[in-house]
Amino acid sequence: MKEPFVEIYDTTLRDGAQGEGLAYTVEDKLKIARALDAIGVSYIEGGWPGANPKDVDFFERAKSLRLDTAKLAAFGSTRRANGIAADDTVVQGLLAAETPIVTIFGKSWDFHVDIALKTTLEENLRMIADTVSHLKSCGRRVFYDAEHFFDGFKANSEYALDTLNSAVKAGAETIILCDTNGGGLPEEIAETVALVRSRFSNARLGIHCHNDGELAVANTLAAIDAGASHVQGVFNGYGERCGNANLCSVIPNIELKMNRRCLPEGRLKLLTHTSRYINEVANLVPNERAAFVGRSAFAHKGGIHVSAVEKAKATYEHIDPEDVGNETRVLISDQSGVSNIRFKSDQLGQNFAKNPEAARRLLAQLKTLEHEGYQFEDAEASFQLLAWSALGTRSRFFEPVDYRIWIGSSGDPEAVVRLKVGDEEVHTASLGVGPAHALDLALRKALLPHYPGISKFHLIDFKVRILDGEHATAAKTRVHVETSDGERSWNTVGVGENIISATWQAIIESIEYGLQISQ
Amino acid sequence: MKEPFVEIYDTTLRDGAQGEGLAYTVEDKLKIARALDAIGVSYIEGGWPGANPKDVDFFERAKSLRLDTAKLAAFGSTRRANGIAADDTVVQGLLAAETPIVTIFGKSWDFHVDIALKTTLEENLRMIADTVSHLKSCGRRVFYDAEHFFDGFKANSEYALDTLNSAVKAGAETIILCDTNGGGLPEEIAETVALVRSRFSNARLGIHCHNDGELAVANTLAAIDAGASHVQGVFNGYGERCGNANLCSVIPNIELKMNRRCLPEGRLKLLTHTSRYINEVANLVPNERAAFVGRSAFAHKGGIHVSAVEKAKATYEHIDPEDVGNETRVLISDQSGVSNIRFKSDQLGQNFAKNPEAARRLLAQLKTLEHEGYQFEDAEASFQLLAWSALGTRSRFFEPVDYRIWIGSSGDPEAVVRLKVGDEEVHTASLGVGPAHALDLALRKALLPHYPGISKFHLIDFKVRILDGEHATAAKTRVHVETSDGERSWNTVGVGENIISATWQAIIESIEYGLQISQ
Repeated sequence: MKEPFVEIYDTTLRDGAQGEGLAYTVEDKLKIARALDAIGVSYIEGGWPGANPKDVDFFERAKSLRLDTAKLAAFGSTRRANGIAADDTVVQGLLAAETPIVTIFGKSWDFHVDIALKTTLEENLRMIADTVSHLKSCGRRVFYDAEHFFDGFKANSEYALDTLNSAVKAGAETIILCDTNGGGLPEEIAETVALVRSRFSNARLGIHCHNDGELAVANTLAAIDAGASHVQGVFNGYGERCGNANLCSVIPNIELKMNRRCLPEGRLKLLTHTSRYINEVANLVPNERAAFVGRSAFAHKGGIHVSAVEKAKATYEHIDPEDVGNETRVLISDQSGVSNIRFKSDQLGQNFAKNPEAARRLLAQLKTLEHEGYQFEDAEASFQLLAWSALGTRSRFFEPVDYRIWIGSSGDPEAVVRLKVGDEEVHTASLGVGPAHALDLALRKALLPHYPGISKFHLIDFKVRILDGEHATAAKTRVHVETSDGERSWNTVGVGENIISATWQAIIESIEYGLQISQ
Repeated sequence: MKEPFVEIYDTTLRDGAQGEGLAYTVEDKLKIARALDAIGVSYIEGGWPGANPKDVDFFERAKSLRLDTAKLAAFGSTRRANGIAADDTVVQGLLAAETPIVTIFGKSWDFHVDIALKTTLEENLRMIADTVSHLKSCGRRVFYDAEHFFDGFKANSEYALDTLNSAVKAGAETIILCDTNGGGLPEEIAETVALVRSRFSNARLGIHCHNDGELAVANTLAAIDAGASHVQGVFNGYGERCGNANLCSVIPNIELKMNRRCLPEGRLKLLTHTSRYINEVANLVPNERAAFVGRSAFAHKGGIHVSAVEKAKATYEHIDPEDVGNETRVLISDQSGVSNIRFKSDQLGQNFAKNPEAARRLLAQLKTLEHEGYQFEDAEASFQLLAWSALGTRSRFFEPVDYRIWIGSSGDPEAVVRLKVGDEEVHTASLGVGPAHALDLALRKALLPHYPGISKFHLIDFKVRILDGEHATAAKTRVHVETSDGERSWNTVGVGENIISATWQAIIESIEYGLQISQ
């Protein structure tokens, strides 16, 4: 008895925030809530009001959020043992958040009731029932998270089912089975969900998985197949330990593979954008290999794959990347042939077909540069500059003349640069925490008066790779630089026997490309 | 009819190398092969000999690799359409690699035979049969990778089965069903594997999954449940697009969750170390959230979780982290490295048990250093120097005093170094092709008259990792250096805000360690 629509309950702002390295400001949380509403999730769990002042503040400010499709939920625990729900500070905090939905978690595992709660099994049942019915009586829709349900069910299945029964009888509208420790296998999850489904036909059934076995997405899909129609998860799979079920994979699997619906019509195309936006707000290094939304998710490197993809994309792509707002990329590498470049230049909109001489020139130049150690697979901007050169449409904004750097075992490195901008020669200097930093600062200082737009550019990533490591310290160095202007970001590359000359080149190209696209 | 043992066929060096941003040197590939053998995989796919000169070189050098549990495999395609296997250059390249196993891939999907191979369905069957039987007649064990098997089976199941039949009749010992585009769901995979299992009882059945739906691990486990007993995958899940099935998750799920075996007794504990070592060699940013082996995999942040874990670890951990060589971390009081250190110091034969005060000192120092960005996974020599310091047995051969470097856009970088050797102060200088090279040469020049053995030392690898890439050019830098004296090789590490200071430290430690072990 499958329902057509699967509710997405997003907990990026609550369970996702437990991930290592994450620390949202209230402003971050509001931004993310707006993005989640834009893509059309059914519910947004905003936090645990009362657990920390930030979450209280969030719910206060969220009262003026105008949400289109999503409804806000506040999360918290059942009342304390041997207390009264109406007097419980956690429960009072939940009500003060004034959200249409309140989600509370309770214990399903007898071991936890004993070890963590230190109370009796009967009192735990009363804690669940009292809390749910009090929240209901205050006009809230109540969702019940059955923490450690699958482990609890294995240990003492009758008791685990009793806890669900307490919640449902007290008025919980949805009961969510949680694989809190994240160790379940899809078959076990499916079997248990199906059994619970058969016992509780009057409540909606939800699933909440963690990724400790790298199976959270599969476990979530298995639960849906077995009768769950409410899915809890986190964008980009953030969360404690290995993270929560990744909604960026769960959502497209539901819509494109299982042929069920979980977002409003037309919103799936926002998936890649939403993933990257949340990642940027969270200030984390993106997982480029992420399924569906990663930068590499539809990137082809091997020559055989590229030539096949050129003939028909379905040869090596499981879905049309546009369905999730992503795109096919062809990587220029030592395994690339003419087809890589043709494909890439098509995608970049260059019309090399009209100018076969330029295409040949570009190809020859790329081969030479690759032989010298350049790699353009992660340096689209440098590739684009070469393409513009070959087509004769590259603008020259300035001409680098000279640089020098001094480094000692004490004191900061110092860089001096000379550039020509038009007829003027600019000569300036800067200190920095390392030689590349000093060079970067000196360059910007020199160019800022001529190109004030540079003030928006900032380097957001910097990577160094030693080529032919067997030449050790005499080896060539390749430097990749990623730059952003706050809206777009682009990658450039430099190669040299000297890390400094490679860095100099990559930074210069990053500025040049940025100026070109800002025109 | 489940077999107890599941063969692990590692393709980190071949399919894994298709991942974006990966470019192994031959030396890297040999290092990884040794690590894979140490953990005890059944097979190591080394590359595609003939596809590029690097892989030819790898197989040449691999002939002198002494592998304990693993057998080497060379990978390639079937012969070309309308050709003769014995005359085919790809097939000849496979034989020249002189591996006990040759794995060839062929087309299962009629669409691909038409679009990519541009030949007839009948000729494709002959290509498979001819190639397998020729390799067999040359004394090779032959494994057959059925590319796009699941998509092919959906499109034209009888033809897909015919291709397997051609391979098996010609003598393929193992047939591997590939979800090449990575879009399969576990149920479909299981159903198809079970059907193939029932048709081909005389060949071992293998599975090869990609992670485009974030389901590669689940799909692999589903296939094992349905009768596959050979698993292809990649450590850390590298690979084209979203990567291959991650062996760091597949292996512990098989051994700890499915209660099957796939490694020799006692090797599972090497999992975390092997994952991190390969990551260092690949010079990639590690996925800290990775299941089982990630630095955060058993890290607890939420207050409730921490207090429960203190009472009983099973409350929030799905397995004992020590089973996979990982450890519990409590993020409030950062506790990194404890089991690492115990493991490392056991392995290095240090008897810290006799000197618990020294062990505590070492532990405290390592925690501080790891917090600063040091990583000793691939820097045993630096770790050993710290251990000797803690035990009071470290010799001081010289004392670095000062260095300076000048770099300009023309001319070679110049380094000046000052050292104390005994009571003597040595002050000398050198040019080099890059700043690190100049520093390295100046140091050797200064020390050679006092320690002539240094002439045998040479740096064989040099890697740079930018920590906290988001600080861009102002980020901290970690430098790894590998040094050899012609017989042994050792690794050291340096960290600093300045690539030069990090390099200086790593080179100094490499020389110091070399002098110590030469005594």
